[in-house]
Amino acid sequence: MTTTQLKTLARETSAASMHALVYHGPGKPAWESHRRPAVQDPQDAVVRITTSTICGTDLHILKGDLPAVTEGRILGHEGIGVIDEVGAGVSAFRKGDKVIISCITACGKCDFCRKQMYSHCRNGGWILGNTIDGTQAEYVRIPYADTSLYPLPASASEEAAVMLSDILPTGFECGVLNGHVQPGDTIAIVGAGPVGLAALLTAQFYSPAAIFCIDLDDNRLKVAQSFGATTLINSAGGNAIQRVMELTHGEGVDVAIEAAGLPATFDICQGILGAGGHLANVGVHGKPVLLHLEKLWDRNATITTRLVDTVTTPLLIKALYAGKLQPARLVTHSFALGDILKAYDIFGNAAKYSALKVALKSL
Amino acid sequence: MTTTQLKTLARETSAASMHALVYHGPGKPAWESHRRPAVQDPQDAVVRITTSTICGTDLHILKGDLPAVTEGRILGHEGIGVIDEVGAGVSAFRKGDKVIISCITACGKCDFCRKQMYSHCRNGGWILGNTIDGTQAEYVRIPYADTSLYPLPASASEEAAVMLSDILPTGFECGVLNGHVQPGDTIAIVGAGPVGLAALLTAQFYSPAAIFCIDLDDNRLKVAQSFGATTLINSAGGNAIQRVMELTHGEGVDVAIEAAGLPATFDICQGILGAGGHLANVGVHGKPVLLHLEKLWDRNATITTRLVDTVTTPLLIKALYAGKLQPARLVTHSFALGDILKAYDIFGNAAKYSALKVALKSL
Amino acid sequence: MTTTQLKTLARETSAASMHALVYHGPGKPAWESHRRPAVQDPQDAVVRITTSTICGTDLHILKGDLPAVTEGRILGHEGIGVIDEVGAGVSAFRKGDKVIISCITACGKCDFCRKQMYSHCRNGGWILGNTIDGTQAEYVRIPYADTSLYPLPASASEEAAVMLSDILPTGFECGVLNGHVQPGDTIAIVGAGPVGLAALLTAQFYSPAAIFCIDLDDNRLKVAQSFGATTLINSAGGNAIQRVMELTHGEGVDVAIEAAGLPATFDICQGILGAGGHLANVGVHGKPVLLHLEKLWDRNATITTRLVDTVTTPLLIKALYAGKLQPARLVTHSFALGDILKAYDIFGNAAKYSALKVALKSL
Amino acid sequence: MTTTQLKTLARETSAASMHALVYHGPGKPAWESHRRPAVQDPQDAVVRITTSTICGTDLHILKGDLPAVTEGRILGHEGIGVIDEVGAGVSAFRKGDKVIISCITACGKCDFCRKQMYSHCRNGGWILGNTIDGTQAEYVRIPYADTSLYPLPASASEEAAVMLSDILPTGFECGVLNGHVQPGDTIAIVGAGPVGLAALLTAQFYSPAAIFCIDLDDNRLKVAQSFGATTLINSAGGNAIQRVMELTHGEGVDVAIEAAGLPATFDICQGILGAGGHLANVGVHGKPVLLHLEKLWDRNATITTRLVDTVTTPLLIKALYAGKLQPARLVTHSFALGDILKAYDIFGNAAKYSALKVALKSL
Repeated sequence: MTTTQLKTLARETSAASMHALVYHGPGKPAWESHRRPAVQDPQDAVVRITTSTICGTDLHILKGDLPAVTEGRILGHEGIGVIDEVGAGVSAFRKGDKVIISCITACGKCDFCRKQMYSHCRNGGWILGNTIDGTQAEYVRIPYADTSLYPLPASASEEAAVMLSDILPTGFECGVLNGHVQPGDTIAIVGAGPVGLAALLTAQFYSPAAIFCIDLDDNRLKVAQSFGATTLINSAGGNAIQRVMELTHGEGVDVAIEAAGLPATFDICQGILGAGGHLANVGVHGKPVLLHLEKLWDRNATITTRLVDTVTTPLLIKALYAGKLQPARLVTHSFALGDILKAYDIFGNAAKYSALKVALKSL
Repeated sequence: MTTTQLKTLARETSAASMHALVYHGPGKPAWESHRRPAVQDPQDAVVRITTSTICGTDLHILKGDLPAVTEGRILGHEGIGVIDEVGAGVSAFRKGDKVIISCITACGKCDFCRKQMYSHCRNGGWILGNTIDGTQAEYVRIPYADTSLYPLPASASEEAAVMLSDILPTGFECGVLNGHVQPGDTIAIVGAGPVGLAALLTAQFYSPAAIFCIDLDDNRLKVAQSFGATTLINSAGGNAIQRVMELTHGEGVDVAIEAAGLPATFDICQGILGAGGHLANVGVHGKPVLLHLEKLWDRNATITTRLVDTVTTPLLIKALYAGKLQPARLVTHSFALGDILKAYDIFGNAAKYSALKVALKSL
Repeated sequence: MTTTQLKTLARETSAASMHALVYHGPGKPAWESHRRPAVQDPQDAVVRITTSTICGTDLHILKGDLPAVTEGRILGHEGIGVIDEVGAGVSAFRKGDKVIISCITACGKCDFCRKQMYSHCRNGGWILGNTIDGTQAEYVRIPYADTSLYPLPASASEEAAVMLSDILPTGFECGVLNGHVQPGDTIAIVGAGPVGLAALLTAQFYSPAAIFCIDLDDNRLKVAQSFGATTLINSAGGNAIQRVMELTHGEGVDVAIEAAGLPATFDICQGILGAGGHLANVGVHGKPVLLHLEKLWDRNATITTRLVDTVTTPLLIKALYAGKLQPARLVTHSFALGDILKAYDIFGNAAKYSALKVALKSL
Repeated sequence: MTTTQLKTLARETSAASMHALVYHGPGKPAWESHRRPAVQDPQDAVVRITTSTICGTDLHILKGDLPAVTEGRILGHEGIGVIDEVGAGVSAFRKGDKVIISCITACGKCDFCRKQMYSHCRNGGWILGNTIDGTQAEYVRIPYADTSLYPLPASASEEAAVMLSDILPTGFECGVLNGHVQPGDTIAIVGAGPVGLAALLTAQFYSPAAIFCIDLDDNRLKVAQSFGATTLINSAGGNAIQRVMELTHGEGVDVAIEAAGLPATFDICQGILGAGGHLANVGVHGKPVLLHLEKLWDRNATITTRLVDTVTTPLLIKALYAGKLQPARLVTHSFALGDILKAYDIFGNAAKYSALKVALKSL
């Protein structure tokens, strides 16, 4: 081999590899070298990640709670990046475009996509970092790129924009829209973690009169207050329901947003729901809950569940540019992408470190 | 006292008494003489009952399941009659008008009435035959008559119209409207008793493509078929969910209407609900149910409860006159009002007698 | 007659008279002594006016544009006051309560009221200062008081609250709600008079991304900017449509709110409406307009008209108390009620005096 | 060249040519030989037409009313066929599949497609037989096949199914859905041509109480009656408005569907619209109309326009299979595709021949 040949080989090898966070079974993530993804189908794009983040779901995967995620999988379903390569069928993007990666992959063609329920896309849905390799990597392959990526101006704040991959549309669609928050309403958000705060931020699009925030952690409640909550209730004492009923003169709330995914928080929601109210479940539940139909059957209640469809991403982008939304406030810690294991440690011990979302930046 | 005076007294005494079905505690109804009601408030009307009926809720009361109903109460919340007397504040009706009595009394002024949620009227709601005397009597006092009665042409079928007091708006509002039945939908009605059949009749206003009817009783299923059900499923074998999933190629239904009020029937509903589907609870539940949020959290499900508001009574009257609705088909047995105890026996043993609704007619 | 008798007579005479603005034909208003109104029907209340105001419609009446208004009529349909007397059928209010008088009188019983379309109430609607005596007086009789008045805490700002009689629900219902303003939308308000500004204030309940305000008067545009308009367009040059199309890159707006009532302003609205957009007419029109269906037929446009129903008054009260609404900013001039003719002069020459709404206060 | 070579050439030449209806300028259509279309883009499909039809719009094109249609264009935007060839990017269809061709081509990716407003697709919309070659041909190229074609079982009636290309979704979406037809409503359809009848058929999905049909042609009115119209009004006498107002006791209708595209028919619609009513424009208008805002401004009216989005095609297919829809009743005449000029003659003189839609069948 000549020197030139060797150099080319080195460059190609380098070009063909990257670093990524690979799941090697419960409790065993590794930041390691991995083959760089390439376009496989005409609708694919390969995106070079510039900012990523970690979701609570990623922690569940690392605990082994999601058996669909198999060993060798690159995790992560949120990210901002730059298009590196597109398949022949991609028309909306070209190499060099900056994009928001949606946590939901949508083929745009199936019956669910055609009623905007991308979450249940027959060819996509939540697959990134789940059944295909994800965004906690230097590069990621995005199927159905035209309908799964959103253009982002080069000047946009990536820390803000990466919140639009998942957490903001989740809080907005599953909590605020499903909850039908209206001007003048009294609403309650049960759970002040990142997704509850995302609901809190976006609920204010509709000017509710009062926003109760309920959590066990005074620090998170303080953050909620700074984000716009009007009344803070620490549920540690077990009297959150009683407190809300007192504050609402026995009427209960118009909207209760469940943002924790626990039987106890769902119980609070059903206990404080006013007649004609909406209970919007956002949390990921691992167990059934006891639904008190013997009390609720005549209460004209609406209870909703939803996996985020990311159908509001364009709306959120417009709100972001109009200055109606400050999602970067959700980011409490920043790391180099290569320091992702440190980031996992901080994010996995969120209460201890007063952490909300982390930003992971490529250098 | 002169003879004339005595005659007048007799007439007045007669005028002031009537017969009514009085609740004397669990298992103790009596058809007996009772003081005839009179106008108490300016918004009151007194209605002479010409047709009444019995509701499943009346059976619950007689079993002692509703402790709010105290001894001495006249039962019944459904009826057709003729206005006998109106208070000074009643403007929409006058003596001699034929009316449908709504099972829900609406003041028309409170915040709930003003958002058409009459079920939760702060001054009314379901009070007839519950906290005030009801319609299983020769006369009944109706508070807020202008907003709790509906005019009925003298020529209308009373057997048909009495179904509009409660059962039809209940099936329609709680089941069909809350379930958002749409043309082309595949829907399931779980429970083929009177309220399930009322949902079945009114669901057809919206032209669903397929209507599965699920019940334990083959006789009721046959009736459901004659009312328009397209597929009958006897759930006795315990495989109703599996059957529906097979029939829908694993997709589940667009709308599941719970019309029995039992944990088992609610379970069927949540088991057959397609992604993005609506579960509309109509049944009166006495116990909590296990809600499988661990399966439903990402299914984009909507679950609703409702006490009938009777806000659609005018719509149902229009449909009735237009020949779009044949509610008299729900009436399987007719009795003289004075034979109401026999009617209770038949209605209380509905399966044995193949009974749906009974008509009680004054002579 | 004794001295005591004479004094009583004087007091009663005084009690039975008041001052009011009486219409004596086009151009002939008079502030004069008038018999004080009394309860006529059981649902009536008599309200002592503490704050009133003038509407653009009142100017039209004075010009003779509304022939239904006959000589001798007391004008005005907006006001805050204190209940002085209630009829036997009034249950929600008692003497001494402070109230907002709705410009729309609603019987609460008719078919229109029962679908919340109070504007078309068969027994009421807009009658105050139109077909019955109005609120530009020391006292006013309000029919159907329970459903036509709203309670106001004694501590509330009357200048703010009087904007809830008409102008705010008009801008909100006819403009913002009918226009379906959504977060992220680009909207245009054509006409920056009081009702356009009311639409501007309440549109912000829904967090639109951009609010274009279009008017001929730079002063009003400056006010609009201080109220939240993001882009100001003076239409004097005749190129408002072109300017909006440039600013929206040829797309047009999501919502166009017509708040002037002129063919020219309606034309601007139809000229700037994006595909799928909503044109919400708020203005009172005296002439037909040319609707360009040859351009609009395939544009998926929705055009709405509406007389305010005041169905959102409770919502607006909640928003007011929650600090989400600052309607007192609409009040540019204050007068004693007795100086109402001066107030008409200012309000009738609004451009000259930079006037928006006036407050008329009893002393 | 050998004999074999010559035969192959002949076959290929034949394979590469077809017959089609080509527009050669106003009044000059020709059924002539034309190069057969081929896949140009990966999302394309080529469909062999088995059934086509003619639309009123095609007559307008032939009159020269649509200057965007240039000489040489193959007309037609409706059809049933069999997939002959698909591009590499087509995943939902393969050669041999029977399909319904939508009159609207939808890329499925643009902002309009992603809010289901396919009519305004940035890459498609109504292009077939307009800006690209259409379906009145033996073969047609369909761009974005996955989102512009619908699968049809081999056993389906093609005469029925071809009505789903355009006329049925147009009547349904622009007329019935935009008009918000509800059970119990009184509706009027102005214009009993094919699209008015399509609205009539699909309005019955929602069980209106009364359907007035208004037209100048008694024959069409008779057809309307057989399709379900409850009241027929011949507007020739000029008193259609008066007649509707009498029949509705001065109330007007809940929904007025304009299905003719003329100022006179639009006038009838605005003249009969009840307070709170919906005027749904379906007709294609060539001129502006006078909108009587001086009467409508306070009538709480909603006026809509729409180019069909064909978003309801899947719903209509479900209704068709469920037997809820008999669209083949719209087909009055059948021809061989090669006899299309005769078909144009019949369809272009519809009144004379009592024609509604024609079916053009390949042999």
